[in-house]
Amino acid sequence: MNSYLSPLAQNLVPYVPGEQPTDRRYIKLNTNENPYPPSPAVAPAVERILREGSLRKYSRPECEPLRELVAQQQGFPSKDYVYFANGSDEVLAFCFAAFFAGRQEPVRFADITYSFYPVYCDLFSIPYRQVPLRDDLTLAVSDYAGPGGGIVIANPNAPTALALTEGELRDLIASHPQEVVVVDEAYAAFSGRSCAAWVMEYPNLIVTRTLSKSHALAGLRVGYCMAQPHLIEGVQRVKNSFNSYSVDALAQAAAYESLSDQAYYHKATDRVIATRERFMERLRKMGFYGPASQANFVFQAHPAFSGAELAAALRQESILVRHFARPERIEPYLRITIGTDEEMEQVAAALERILARGGIK
Amino acid sequence: MNSYLSPLAQNLVPYVPGEQPTDRRYIKLNTNENPYPPSPAVAPAVERILREGSLRKYSRPECEPLRELVAQQQGFPSKDYVYFANGSDEVLAFCFAAFFAGRQEPVRFADITYSFYPVYCDLFSIPYRQVPLRDDLTLAVSDYAGPGGGIVIANPNAPTALALTEGELRDLIASHPQEVVVVDEAYAAFSGRSCAAWVMEYPNLIVTRTLSKSHALAGLRVGYCMAQPHLIEGVQRVKNSFNSYSVDALAQAAAYESLSDQAYYHKATDRVIATRERFMERLRKMGFYGPASQANFVFQAHPAFSGAELAAALRQESILVRHFARPERIEPYLRITIGTDEEMEQVAAALERILARGGIK
Repeated sequence: MNSYLSPLAQNLVPYVPGEQPTDRRYIKLNTNENPYPPSPAVAPAVERILREGSLRKYSRPECEPLRELVAQQQGFPSKDYVYFANGSDEVLAFCFAAFFAGRQEPVRFADITYSFYPVYCDLFSIPYRQVPLRDDLTLAVSDYAGPGGGIVIANPNAPTALALTEGELRDLIASHPQEVVVVDEAYAAFSGRSCAAWVMEYPNLIVTRTLSKSHALAGLRVGYCMAQPHLIEGVQRVKNSFNSYSVDALAQAAAYESLSDQAYYHKATDRVIATRERFMERLRKMGFYGPASQANFVFQAHPAFSGAELAAALRQESILVRHFARPERIEPYLRITIGTDEEMEQVAAALERILARGGIK
Repeated sequence: MNSYLSPLAQNLVPYVPGEQPTDRRYIKLNTNENPYPPSPAVAPAVERILREGSLRKYSRPECEPLRELVAQQQGFPSKDYVYFANGSDEVLAFCFAAFFAGRQEPVRFADITYSFYPVYCDLFSIPYRQVPLRDDLTLAVSDYAGPGGGIVIANPNAPTALALTEGELRDLIASHPQEVVVVDEAYAAFSGRSCAAWVMEYPNLIVTRTLSKSHALAGLRVGYCMAQPHLIEGVQRVKNSFNSYSVDALAQAAAYESLSDQAYYHKATDRVIATRERFMERLRKMGFYGPASQANFVFQAHPAFSGAELAAALRQESILVRHFARPERIEPYLRITIGTDEEMEQVAAALERILARGGIK
């Protein structure tokens, strides 16, 4: 290790995102992107900014119009309940720094969840404890009993695609009134449920969202969070200690139009959910097992094959899915993003061929 | 202070950027934006991405085309000498984490320089030492003698607008072979000199740049850095522990076209420099004093007025400039961004009126 790197950097083990290949065409179902384009209102909004010639000037550092829009849609008293950043990865990084950095007590999250959480902890030297999911990959709220430095819940969870019930989630938030509970709702649109409105009730709740999945804007990098102002103020303080202008002017304009066009996204989300249910039925018929999905992906395994083998066989068929080798008990599973009906038909057909011939060509 | 905030967040004192007012029209010379629009190639590049309908997919996490372009323009062996991020504020934050976090020895920078540097140090718990500039606001390389945890030099410096000579800068880099020296070239285009090519010689040198000023893309948030691969790897490691996709697809496309259109920006830069020299002459005639500028702003004071008074009087004339109350010895100075000839004529006329009437209305 070269000594120019800081002691911090020498010990970082970065998150590894799903690949974004450019070498050839794949059916790309490895990063939970939306198969449908963003709202038709996005392009005109971006073009308006280009015509105005305002790119030479800094974007609004505090994203006021976006925050006011979300506050109004959610029924919050003001924009001070909302914060926007450069993708929900950045929102989450700011939350970890704002609520957990420098505490003695470990922040807690599941052993099988978004694998960026432990990476943020390492970046800000935060102690953490990974709480094992049950054997069926569900989360037991009782496993979080007792005090800690904070709790992070992806709901629905990734890669398991499972969500807590409303009662379980309320129980978790209410039973830790001294700790900040971050609920990462990256996939909530596909479960039809959100706890965003609860931020009015719970002073310790912060809810994060992304426009990457539900709003088909992964290429634009916009995420946000919602909480009472005393928590939002902490996130802002970290952001303003990192990057004064983290959301660019084109992204702000596109996000505003996207969030305004709720009807369009409801329709797109409904299509993804319908495709998901049909695809799950096909998988069941082939003998796959795994949790019912509340997200825009499924997490499924087949008793006759390892996950690595199935992922490799699908790649031979020009289909990319995500496979996690660790922890060992999820090795058999594939995380398959829900694409269009046509794409999922091709995936199902490919899986049938693979099962029939017994694996890799 | 609310106990939900982490010990880290409770102690952060964020950077305060120049205001971005939306209440009324100002001649806005407070954030060093370029008075001219970005290259005419920017809008078509953004529109092409919109037409392709690729925003639903993640942007390239590693910005390969941009890195290859800069490597080629600079004569570096490969893209591994270049890294891009969401504005040079983000580049700098990553550098502070990658090279300085966790060291015992303090990182060193000037007492009067970009005021974000101490903020990054606080964010990553890095000890630092602010080395006083000389009375004439120049930097004495000899003041950095002896070992430390690293050195950060803004060259030209902000807000002083002064640059080191080539000899001084080489001396500084060469005399600290064990420490990383970050040279922040946010304003280098306006000095006509860059040390980017030196990264081939010095394994401890990293040079940061922004497209906000010289490339008139403040609204798009693109910055980059150049160094030997063993340093770039550290920056990437931090970035991949923070945000997998930090530069969005539209920004990548716009930055590519901007960096390709060197002729356009040379012309715009030359115009800014010519305006700066004319404006400085006007200021001198009015009795202003301060350093000659090598940037797209001037740092000037008048013997008869405090800086606060002049800034307030200009605001009454709908002209925004930047004024720093601390440290005390720069209180008399205004940092005035160079705008168009017409704008600077209005500023000069306003200053003449203010001086004539003796200050604030």
